[in-house]
Amino acid sequence: MAAQIGVTGLAVMGANLARNLARNGYTVAVHNRSRARTDALIAEHGGDGDFVAAETMAELVGALEKPRRVLIMVKAGKPVDDVIAELVPLLDADDIIIDGGNSHYTDTRRREAALADKGLHFVGVGVSGGEEGALNGPSIMPGGSKKSYESLGPMLEKISAHVDGEPCCHWLGTDGAGHFVKMVHNGIEYADMQVIGEAYDLLRSGAGIEPGEQAKIFAEWNKGDLSSFLIEITAQVLGHVDAKTGKPFIDVLVDAAGMKGTGGWTVQAALELGSPVTGIAESVFARALSSQSAQRPTAQQVLAGHEVKLDLPDTFVEDVRQALYASKLVSYAQGLDMLVSASKEYGWDLDLGGIASLWRGGCIIRAALLRTITEAYRGDNPPANLLFAPEFTEAIGAAVPAWRRVVATAAQLGIPAPVFSSSLAYYDGLRRERLPAALTQGLRDLFGAHTYKRVDADGTFHTLWSGDKSEVKQD
Amino acid sequence: MAAQIGVTGLAVMGANLARNLARNGYTVAVHNRSRARTDALIAEHGGDGDFVAAETMAELVGALEKPRRVLIMVKAGKPVDDVIAELVPLLDADDIIIDGGNSHYTDTRRREAALADKGLHFVGVGVSGGEEGALNGPSIMPGGSKKSYESLGPMLEKISAHVDGEPCCHWLGTDGAGHFVKMVHNGIEYADMQVIGEAYDLLRSGAGIEPGEQAKIFAEWNKGDLSSFLIEITAQVLGHVDAKTGKPFIDVLVDAAGMKGTGGWTVQAALELGSPVTGIAESVFARALSSQSAQRPTAQQVLAGHEVKLDLPDTFVEDVRQALYASKLVSYAQGLDMLVSASKEYGWDLDLGGIASLWRGGCIIRAALLRTITEAYRGDNPPANLLFAPEFTEAIGAAVPAWRRVVATAAQLGIPAPVFSSSLAYYDGLRRERLPAALTQGLRDLFGAHTYKRVDADGTFHTLWSGDKSEVKQD
Repeated sequence: MAAQIGVTGLAVMGANLARNLARNGYTVAVHNRSRARTDALIAEHGGDGDFVAAETMAELVGALEKPRRVLIMVKAGKPVDDVIAELVPLLDADDIIIDGGNSHYTDTRRREAALADKGLHFVGVGVSGGEEGALNGPSIMPGGSKKSYESLGPMLEKISAHVDGEPCCHWLGTDGAGHFVKMVHNGIEYADMQVIGEAYDLLRSGAGIEPGEQAKIFAEWNKGDLSSFLIEITAQVLGHVDAKTGKPFIDVLVDAAGMKGTGGWTVQAALELGSPVTGIAESVFARALSSQSAQRPTAQQVLAGHEVKLDLPDTFVEDVRQALYASKLVSYAQGLDMLVSASKEYGWDLDLGGIASLWRGGCIIRAALLRTITEAYRGDNPPANLLFAPEFTEAIGAAVPAWRRVVATAAQLGIPAPVFSSSLAYYDGLRRERLPAALTQGLRDLFGAHTYKRVDADGTFHTLWSGDKSEVKQD
Repeated sequence: MAAQIGVTGLAVMGANLARNLARNGYTVAVHNRSRARTDALIAEHGGDGDFVAAETMAELVGALEKPRRVLIMVKAGKPVDDVIAELVPLLDADDIIIDGGNSHYTDTRRREAALADKGLHFVGVGVSGGEEGALNGPSIMPGGSKKSYESLGPMLEKISAHVDGEPCCHWLGTDGAGHFVKMVHNGIEYADMQVIGEAYDLLRSGAGIEPGEQAKIFAEWNKGDLSSFLIEITAQVLGHVDAKTGKPFIDVLVDAAGMKGTGGWTVQAALELGSPVTGIAESVFARALSSQSAQRPTAQQVLAGHEVKLDLPDTFVEDVRQALYASKLVSYAQGLDMLVSASKEYGWDLDLGGIASLWRGGCIIRAALLRTITEAYRGDNPPANLLFAPEFTEAIGAAVPAWRRVVATAAQLGIPAPVFSSSLAYYDGLRRERLPAALTQGLRDLFGAHTYKRVDADGTFHTLWSGDKSEVKQD
């Protein structure tokens, strides 16, 4: 029997996706550059379903029904191009190559265009949920031609996570749309983790609440608005005690956060689009700062704190919760706004409700909140900014007093809360009638003749600053 | 007589650099794609010195002494490549092509490598100071081979601005070093303007000080630590009254700040390098936010403020000045730190003292502060971070109490101060003994098996979160 899909690259993500497909009743041809991994998969998990072990790429392709579907699960970058180059001569028109790795969307756009020229479909698919999600149901974000989705979509939807009977997978848009959306998902994930870290730090260093006690607080928070996978596992991590020392686990970890690049990619893409994603940017930079191990010890010694002693209000824990929630909403608003800009720029016609919907399950940022976001965008009046959806306008408005208190308190206590404070500045900036950007424009006109616009007249103007300071209208 | 240098591209920057060269005694061959600009330059400014008008690129090259020096002053991007392609067949080994435009450093690196293969020198030169600087003495940031600087350097140094008899120009490093340093200069310029805007907004909206009165305050500030071109012209812009309406000039400007890209480039490059430049990033995003004209009116209507009424302290104006100064120092520290990272990454061996020195005159960020920075890096113990230089450790430490008050006040008043608050968060983050990045690492290990390091043991570890939660050491 011909296999319905082939998977090449059987490291853990590829192997788990292959098993997920087999468990869902598909016959899966599997291939790996070194045969050992293929054998191991069959030996250990052959019982999951119908596998066809392929020794070579030609064998893999030969085992597939047409149109062929080949899922590449290799390291992003040159390895993907290498596998594509190897596959292309073996394929026929209308066959589908799928890249399920963490590729940069610009690479996906380039590959899609090149393969479309050869009559092949190239589908860049973002897969979130880690190893466990790949096996049991990830959140799947496919780009590529609509036509390719007719053939491929049902399989992807079947193996994806499901929430309320709806698959956490749907077609997002052409070429790089899937990898772009996955990238933004990861950017939001950075911000989600950073605001949790800021809350933890304020509760610990501000209010003196130990990790074990905080585990209970986060578990409690997980029952309300903040209910989400990341809050849930924060409670687990904070509650964990290090067996070796008997200390809270978190206290034995080196406090330098690693990153794999997608957070930074998100910010770089936002800069291209002119889309403000301050929450994600501050989160990426907070990780970078934490890793400056050469500077931090000196800074601890020489930089003065002058922290202010404050009596914290009785509401402090709840204040922090609200600040976390408001800051999280801002990061989502910024991330979604960036998707709107990208959709225009690249002609993707992204459906924000659908995107929020497929993030509800399987992926790292899965959260109760995403159901409300989905509903906001699927309603009759999708908001121009997430914060303008009535339920979110109200929710963030209610959090504002606490949010202001927490940001002010953090500044006085000397506890860094870059995303809490940056998100509040974004919120206040967005709603502000007049911004000091007017001064920026005045300065730019003075030193660089960059011109300006007036509030009371059409056209573009320049003041003769080194002359009589009269104003001239430009053509 | 053979010309010592040729200039192709006679828009205002090119024409003014050509005139500057001629005024300094060099014979300058000039060329423009359309002859009219060449004629206009000779007709209007021929008296500035010795010009040779060239009709074609071949004539331009033919007019030059060897090794030839050709300065390209065309729009960044493809036009530069086009001119290079036109020039190359006309040149001989050891000739020097100079790109004085705002090119991206990666383009400069690519071009330098390609031309080195042909035996030609390619010099990417950052030029700051606008039209007026180009004519009377800009700040000049040259990259390229050291050998090319032997021939070209004396000319560039002669036409540059001078401070204390020292030219605001010196060789920075190979290939893209010049354009990279210019890019970071521009990034810092964004932050400089944004902190001025935040100070203005706090004084206006917080303390109710009108622009005319603020002009006097900025003029006064310009006599102290903040003395700089941008503070000086802020006083001018704030003091200016609109002739048409009789209102403060700033009040008739549309408050949407434009940008030309270099600020965003700086942040993108910093993300590549893993170097936190929060002040520059927030400045770029503040401009982007100001331009969201489709969202701002709705936000004004629907987003709740819940501003807190505060009695401002008598010291508020001085507090704001200190917050501005401290935030400015952070932006410089971050920009210089990014140069250190780039220098390692690209093998440039950048001299931070020299860079601060050449920013002292001619360019937009020229400031008294840069003399102190120069001295800090030229001393016996160049600091690992600008803030660790004793004079800056002391200066920023003295500003901390006011800075905390201002950031807390801005949050309570609902006045966005993204760079003030972000810079304080960076400062507090850098000097912090333990960061919540430890929690981030714990979460990443739980959901993605990303592993972690321990404070009390070498090696890399992973906890079996879905098993018995024991810890395993990785190989």
